[in-house]
Amino acid sequence: MSEKIVVGVDIGGTAIKVGICDLNGELLHTYEGPTETEKGSDAICNNIANYARLIVEQSPYSWDQVEGVGIGVAGFLDIPNGIIKFSPNLGFRNVPLKAFLEERLGKKVLVNNDANVAALGEAWAGAGRGVDHCVCYTLGTGVGGGIIIGGRIVEGFNGMAGELGHMSIVPDLEAIQCGCGKMGCLETVSSATGIIRMAKDAVERGDRTSLSFVPNIMAKDVIDAAKAGDEVASRIVARAAFYLGKSMAAVAVVLNPQRFIIGGGVSKAGEFLFEQIREVFQKATPEVAVEGVEIVPAILGNNAGVVGAAGLIIRS
Amino acid sequence: MSEKIVVGVDIGGTAIKVGICDLNGELLHTYEGPTETEKGSDAICNNIANYARLIVEQSPYSWDQVEGVGIGVAGFLDIPNGIIKFSPNLGFRNVPLKAFLEERLGKKVLVNNDANVAALGEAWAGAGRGVDHCVCYTLGTGVGGGIIIGGRIVEGFNGMAGELGHMSIVPDLEAIQCGCGKMGCLETVSSATGIIRMAKDAVERGDRTSLSFVPNIMAKDVIDAAKAGDEVASRIVARAAFYLGKSMAAVAVVLNPQRFIIGGGVSKAGEFLFEQIREVFQKATPEVAVEGVEIVPAILGNNAGVVGAAGLIIRS
Repeated sequence: MSEKIVVGVDIGGTAIKVGICDLNGELLHTYEGPTETEKGSDAICNNIANYARLIVEQSPYSWDQVEGVGIGVAGFLDIPNGIIKFSPNLGFRNVPLKAFLEERLGKKVLVNNDANVAALGEAWAGAGRGVDHCVCYTLGTGVGGGIIIGGRIVEGFNGMAGELGHMSIVPDLEAIQCGCGKMGCLETVSSATGIIRMAKDAVERGDRTSLSFVPNIMAKDVIDAAKAGDEVASRIVARAAFYLGKSMAAVAVVLNPQRFIIGGGVSKAGEFLFEQIREVFQKATPEVAVEGVEIVPAILGNNAGVVGAAGLIIRS
Repeated sequence: MSEKIVVGVDIGGTAIKVGICDLNGELLHTYEGPTETEKGSDAICNNIANYARLIVEQSPYSWDQVEGVGIGVAGFLDIPNGIIKFSPNLGFRNVPLKAFLEERLGKKVLVNNDANVAALGEAWAGAGRGVDHCVCYTLGTGVGGGIIIGGRIVEGFNGMAGELGHMSIVPDLEAIQCGCGKMGCLETVSSATGIIRMAKDAVERGDRTSLSFVPNIMAKDVIDAAKAGDEVASRIVARAAFYLGKSMAAVAVVLNPQRFIIGGGVSKAGEFLFEQIREVFQKATPEVAVEGVEIVPAILGNNAGVVGAAGLIIRS
């Protein structure tokens, strides 16, 4: 056990997940402990440090083998300095996480936002393994994203790169307002929330659909109904797929990635959804930018964050 | 004169332009000679080598001071190997330009496509000087583009990154077919060709416009008419600006560049056009991705190609 390892930390509002990866991105061990958000930012930071130490102690590896510790966290970050400027779900304001952990752990620490880190996980050791240029979409409550070029996260000038859910893509006439305040963002139609909203609108409008009999519509209900042939549900899923495909067509001519990777709850719709996305993508993208480009499902699931956080140490 | 210099070559269908830059991107000397396309690819390659030698001989610098020679050329390229796979206007097919010139000149040679090279020129030594992340649009016969992240050209997996003119951005109901075969590309509305087409359509439809009295409408005529208050022309320019702004809004959340740089003939419309683009951009982009982001005119004009070609040697 003389080889080097990297530790990844995925900080959520209720649990902190820690993982050990080898330098190829193989996830060797994981550990999960409570975040204890209610105890405040000092306690959370101590928990992170403790869990990182603990997982290594409990593993066959020694602390000397640790190359560094990567952290993924939701919020507005000063990435180069590893400062959490604002993280609503942790209650963090201007917490210098990198400096604190480097002091406590005596290792190189890198911090990045959760969506970027999940994208790096998939690109490094998941559905993008071996591929230099990947763009990842996460279809959950919102639509998250991350851009990997040359194996590294693209952060942008203010750390706002990869905010794919806020591509203004729905034409004005059909657009509704997004949580970000703008009209027609991708996540208004292609997130679980967007799908549920369209379904509820259809039911309220009195459209004939099996969804009328579902008490509390979830995105999965809409997808299942679409798969079963319900026309209204099919139209909704087709619309979600349409704007995903259109947004990928735009990204394809901007960045020409080799692989689009789609994860998150909605992506569990599987080939039924992916085929529709690919069809729109191919129709809207010049052939030279379609050639060799794949649209594939994410494979790491909830581990993408912890693997990608570890990957920060290798890929930066 | 002991400092290092870089040589840039911009190969056009009728002329080859050569320039000497210092390592800060200052253009010190230029020379232009005929391409002699009619003589075939060997003759063109010899001309490139000769003009590169000649400009240095005629300058106060010696060949020893040359760090390398960068080349910008229109066409489909194998960028890493510097092979021109196909260049219609030069008649090149599978010409190993990099290998030929490295042999002939005894210097490092790098080849990239003309739009990427012009973008690098502006980013390195023009309107993007000092800015790490720039996205450049060239509004000419088509809409060209180039993406500079961390000071370097983003080429993409097949060299197709930065093809901003082929963002599928016009909604299906209003879309027309682009030269690339797809519907609704940005260049169908925001290029000179697109503006002229919309103007001719308006005249043919019998819309009341001063453009009816213009014998052979150019994009400049439409812009001038719009500036003079012609409603039809104003609508056309607003439409060109609208989709430019929308495309920048999309790029802003994908890459979060600090600066958008717009060049090419249509950009000469100046603030009249830029103000409209900025308004749409701000309306369609989440505030956090607008903050600190500028939309500015290119400043190098026709020298962007030769400066950016020289820049390949520094920025790669």
